[in-house]
Amino acid sequence: MDASSVSYLRILMDVASDSHLPEGASMNDLSLPKAVSQAALSAQTINLGHQARLRSRNGEARGHTAGVAPGNVQGNLMVLPKDLASDFLLFCQRNPRPCPILAVSEPGNPMLPSLGEDVDIRYDIPRYRVYKDGVLVDEPYDIASQWRDDLVSFVLGCSFSFEQALVEAGIPLRHIEEQRTVPMYRTNIATTPAGVFHGPMVVSMRPMRPADIVRAVQVTSRFPSVHGAPVHIGMPHLIGIQDINKPDFGESITIHDDEMPVFWACGVTPQSVAMAMKPAFCLTHAPGSMLVTDLTNNSLASF
Amino acid sequence: MDASSVSYLRILMDVASDSHLPEGASMNDLSLPKAVSQAALSAQTINLGHQARLRSRNGEARGHTAGVAPGNVQGNLMVLPKDLASDFLLFCQRNPRPCPILAVSEPGNPMLPSLGEDVDIRYDIPRYRVYKDGVLVDEPYDIASQWRDDLVSFVLGCSFSFEQALVEAGIPLRHIEEQRTVPMYRTNIATTPAGVFHGPMVVSMRPMRPADIVRAVQVTSRFPSVHGAPVHIGMPHLIGIQDINKPDFGESITIHDDEMPVFWACGVTPQSVAMAMKPAFCLTHAPGSMLVTDLTNNSLASF
Repeated sequence: MDASSVSYLRILMDVASDSHLPEGASMNDLSLPKAVSQAALSAQTINLGHQARLRSRNGEARGHTAGVAPGNVQGNLMVLPKDLASDFLLFCQRNPRPCPILAVSEPGNPMLPSLGEDVDIRYDIPRYRVYKDGVLVDEPYDIASQWRDDLVSFVLGCSFSFEQALVEAGIPLRHIEEQRTVPMYRTNIATTPAGVFHGPMVVSMRPMRPADIVRAVQVTSRFPSVHGAPVHIGMPHLIGIQDINKPDFGESITIHDDEMPVFWACGVTPQSVAMAMKPAFCLTHAPGSMLVTDLTNNSLASF
Repeated sequence: MDASSVSYLRILMDVASDSHLPEGASMNDLSLPKAVSQAALSAQTINLGHQARLRSRNGEARGHTAGVAPGNVQGNLMVLPKDLASDFLLFCQRNPRPCPILAVSEPGNPMLPSLGEDVDIRYDIPRYRVYKDGVLVDEPYDIASQWRDDLVSFVLGCSFSFEQALVEAGIPLRHIEEQRTVPMYRTNIATTPAGVFHGPMVVSMRPMRPADIVRAVQVTSRFPSVHGAPVHIGMPHLIGIQDINKPDFGESITIHDDEMPVFWACGVTPQSVAMAMKPAFCLTHAPGSMLVTDLTNNSLASF
């Protein structure tokens, strides 16, 4: 899709209307006329990431992005005012395992060109969360009305990327088999503080047989920009997890007798750390509703 | 050292004599006159592997090679008659984790040029073992008098190489700290049979803390030609180990409460498999007394 057709779509989005929207939804949630949308999509059929973002932008996609544009990198979103952004950037730099940065915007600029064609962070995620003083106040389908000139967007790598690599390596993932959200735990593993940001690491857990654990370490080590290798294997009590069947986030899953829990640094860590200091204003993606980028997971492999 | 000085040393070795040798030791165990030996060594001081082999060749080195020529690859030796060698080669090809081949000689040729300057397998290991019908019958300091035109030498990678990489990565090794031989266990992990060779995998064990286990998998994965990544982590009963404190070979070592046993395929596997079929004739290195090659451990890294 060329620049002129992008502009055309944007104009259509800005003028469209739909009476079925929930109260408070903005103009930009609205569906494009089907024929226009399909014509635009067919013009760039190989860019599944852009297709996915257009579906968010025109209101066709409003839920989870798991399985959307398989092979494309998906990212967590954290939007903070500029006065907090430099501390947060430093926090991510000091804690790359839980906070692997894929892109940081210019202040006030909603575009993230390094992540793909025409990425506009105000519209391109299916659903968002708005926090004021650390309290969730809204879950809108776009953040155009929230946008400010001092906002900085951070897109962080997420586990979907390394999970694709694990599945392609033939390693079964229990939370996918059991159709649950991956279990996550607050640990006693300290992050390295930066300015106002500090707090414990949150980890996700996937149970595996020992031979698969070896392979999983190899496979995920190749992807440092999407959490990389596990931070812990077995022995959950050593990282402060009292009951493996009671995750702090997500859902409990089955661990068989011939398996051990394997723990990866989790992208919930930066959210948890940011919320703990109750920022006056903060935007994130809604859980599971991620930014689908044009980057391929394979392009992130370090070797 | 050039070819002419090598020939000179060989001639000296063949004519030297020493009244302190044990009964049955061959001519080639004998010490070179010190001045000649030292002059030869000083002429090639950067080749520590060659120095080590000369010390074996001239009888100065007769024990373990642990710590000798640090950074150089050391290898296990298996010498078999040609009629068994092709099956053994196939066995190694099918079981690369326990049997990583570094070099195979031409039948009857004692030289292994791919492993370094002037490597002569008859003299260059400090001590050997001679087996007849599967029974240990001698532990000579060279195998010149045993040599036959139908013998094929196999040099297989050993754990010294990946242990160097682990130590350089800051991972402590308990058996080194406790000055014991690494504990080894027969497992229920089947090898893939080839001809007359079959039997279970033998593994070595190193206890580590979980974070170190992740790093150890990464570090050793880079060295597939010296056993590579672990084959198992934790849960020894799953691979048929009844009592971790009673190894089948080597010595028991301490496992702390915050550690798990990590298991690597062990070079004792091919020896164990070969002895189990009681070959009419077979030569190996004596335990811990390895072939020091000119290859560097770092040169074996796969990436």
